[in-house]
Formats: sequence, structure tokens, C-alpha cells
Amino acid sequence: MTISLYYFNIRGFGEYIRLLLIDQGVSFEDYQYERFSEEWEKLKKTMIFGQAPCLKDGNEEFVQTGAIMRYLARKYDLYGSNPADAAFIDMVFECVRDLRAKYERYIYYSDETKENYDSVTLPETLANLSKLLKHCSQFVSGDKISFADYVLFEELDVANTTAPGSLNKFENLKQLHANMSARPNLKQYVLTRTTRINGIDRQ
Amino acid sequence: MTISLYYFNIRGFGEYIRLLLIDQGVSFEDYQYERFSEEWEKLKKTMIFGQAPCLKDGNEEFVQTGAIMRYLARKYDLYGSNPADAAFIDMVFECVRDLRAKYERYIYYSDETKENYDSVTLPETLANLSKLLKHCSQFVSGDKISFADYVLFEELDVANTTAPGSLNKFENLKQLHANMSARPNLKQYVLTRTTRINGIDRQ
Ligand SMILES: N[C@@H](CCC(=O)N[C@@H](CS)C(=O)NCC(=O)O)C(=O)O
Ligand SMILES: N[C@@H](CCC(=O)N[C@@H](CS)C(=O)NCC(=O)O)C(=O)O
Repeated sequence: MTISLYYFNIRGFGEYIRLLLIDQGVSFEDYQYERFSEEWEKLKKTMIFGQAPCLKDGNEEFVQTGAIMRYLARKYDLYGSNPADAAFIDMVFECVRDLRAKYERYIYYSDETKENYDSVTLPETLANLSKLLKHCSQFVSGDKISFADYVLFEELDVANTTAPGSLNKFENLKQLHANMSARPNLKQYVLTRTTRINGIDRQ
Repeated sequence: MTISLYYFNIRGFGEYIRLLLIDQGVSFEDYQYERFSEEWEKLKKTMIFGQAPCLKDGNEEFVQTGAIMRYLARKYDLYGSNPADAAFIDMVFECVRDLRAKYERYIYYSDETKENYDSVTLPETLANLSKLLKHCSQFVSGDKISFADYVLFEELDVANTTAPGSLNKFENLKQLHANMSARPNLKQYVLTRTTRINGIDRQ
């Protein structure tokens, strides 16, 4: 069965899914559209929410990042080992998504500024995450990788790029980022990807 | 073991959790804080993200609506019967949360207006939801209630109140709303609750 991802030619939400599939060694078609292009507008009309990311797995079609990541997590055993793990993984995932939503506020809207994001929003959230993950060993959920590791890795990497040095104060987050960066499939991929972080040039 | 919910004296995100627990006949402490009050600011400092809702179940503490709802779903068997159901339930949940996020854009921020929300955003999302749920019978996931039913019920109810008549065109959504309203525990609760829909008086 072929797995196909439909997203834009940026990292954005699609990158969480790409990282998971690539790290797990799952081969998939990575369809990358230019936002506002004719091609995308045509595809958009065929989609239930007119939104990407969309994942097709054989005849099944999924939208919503939070649903797609969990679908893949159930399929590839990336949801911890018990309900307590699952709840913790969900908490981390939701927290990282809040951070991404705030990041978008300064990229695409005007009620957040890069200055405030870099000096207040980002360090506050990183501090919360660092505290939440204080008992972590290798991954978010002990020694077993979970879908939350991919989103956390991506957002730490974005933070590292758009606000260099922002991880320095947080030893455990830096370590998680380093652990993920060192995974063979990811290491290779990250070195060669050409996608921008977001849909506009401002970073 | 005592279950306690910590949230504000409004419906907001906390209402999803209240509806689930009430409908399931689970007794819980419903701590309702006044936003910006001294009491809240004191509690806030003890919380991992300084955010509500927060749920305590015995010694375990959970934050993030999307994590709390799924924790309760696993505990009370509200996540469908198989991975395909779970993915569908997640999709509906995430879609409803997007709607709520847009609702908040006009309530708390300025890049959405009530006019645009009522005449474009809300009907477009309701149309998507209605299409997504076209094969639904009694609940989001067939004949088995799931955690998505509570969030969908809440947001349909909010739509009904803040934009009267907005559900009229969507027979299946109206039916879902009616099914939920008729559940004995919910019927009783909805009639007597005194909480406002959101944190400011504008509706
Ligand atoms: N809650 C959804 C949001 C998806 C979303 O907002 N996607 C945007 C791009 S990141 C989109 O497809 N917009 C429609 C368009 O650009 O035409 C998710 O997490 O998947
Ligand atoms: N993503 C979080 C967001 C929680 C959130 O934003 N909570 C707000 C109120 S609805 C809050 O507690 N704000 C802190 C404050 O008002 O002091 C969730 O879904 O639980």
C-alpha cells in the first residue's frame, strides 16, 4: 500500500509527518505544492477541509496534523507502552503545538512580534517544556521513541534556527535535539532537505 | 480516587471535560476560578504550564485539553472500537478545535470579526463538518459515543447561541446536537449551568 503525503513545499506541519516516516524507514510519496499555485487550488477543491497536510494510506485519507500523527503513532507503535505514557506524550505534543501556533502569530499575523516571541514567548515555553521533560532520558517517553519526539525535534530545530542560542539554557532539550539529530535516517535527511521553515521569507 | 477539574468560571475548554464527566456519570470536583483573580494567580504558579484546564486524577496531574480529553477517552472507553475509528474521532476533534481557535480570534483578538466569522468562517466549517459526518448515525463514531461528541456538541451549542439559526442548513449536525441534548445527565446539566460561554461579555 502506498503512503502519500500532500503538503506545501515548506517544512510547516508537514515536516512532523515527514520526519516520522523517514525515521521509521517508511517509504512514501512526498507531494509538495506551491501555496496559492493553480495545482494546489485544484487539489484543495477535492479535499474535505481544503487544508493540508493530508495523508493517504491506500484507500484511506486523513487530514488534521493531530489526527495524522496519532494514526501513524498507532500504526508504528509510537504512542508509549501504556495509557500513562500516552497521556504524557499527548501533553508534550499539545504543548509543542501551542508553541507553533504562537510562532505563526508573528509570522502570519500581527499580534505577536519577533522581539516578543524570541525574548518572552519562546523562552517561557522552552522553560515549561524543559521542566515537563525533567525526568526524560533519551526520548520524551523514556527509552522508546514516540510521535511527540518528532514534533519536539522539529520545533527545537526551528527555535535553534530562528532564534540562535535559544536552547542553550536548557540542557535536556539540547540533548533531545542532539539525540534526534544523530539518528541515521534523520541525520541524512536534515542535511539534504531544501524546504524553508515557513511559507514566507521572514524567519 | 477523586477527580478534580481546575478551570475558570466560564465554559471555554473546560466545558468539554465537564460534559464528558457529567454524561459518563463520573463525580468530580469542579473548581471554577475567576480569571485574573488573586486565587487563580496563586494556583497558576503551581501549574506546569500556568494554564487551565488542569485535571487531577488521584496523584496524577494532566494539562492540555487535547491530552485530558484523550486520557479520559481511554479511561472511559470513548475512543471508538479500532484504530480507524480512533483516527476519525481525532479528525473531528481537531476540526472542532480549529473552529474554536477561529472563534477566539474574534472574541479575544482583532484579525477576525463577528461579521466574517458568522457569515464565512462558521458556515464553511459547519459545511465541512457536515460533509465529514455524512455517514454518521447517532454519534460521531457510529452508535458508540466518543470524546469528539462532547466537543462537537459544545461548539454546535455555542454556534446556536452566538449565531442563532446557523445550524439550520445542516440536518445531520442539528440531529447530533439534538441527540446529545437529550441525554439525561446532559439535559439536566445544560438547563442549570450558569457559566458564560467565554471570558468576556461579548458573545
Ligand atoms: N488544524 C489543521 C490546520 C491545517 C492548516 O491550517 N493548513 C494550512 C497550511 S499550514 C492550509 O492548508 N491552508 C489552506 C490553503 O493554504 O489553501 C492541521 O493541523 O492540519
Ligand atoms: N492548548 C491549551 C491552552 C490552554 C489555555 O490557553 N488556557 C488559558 C485559558 S482558556 C489559560 O489558562 N491562560 C492562562 C491565564 O489566563 O492565566 C489547552 O488546550 O489546554
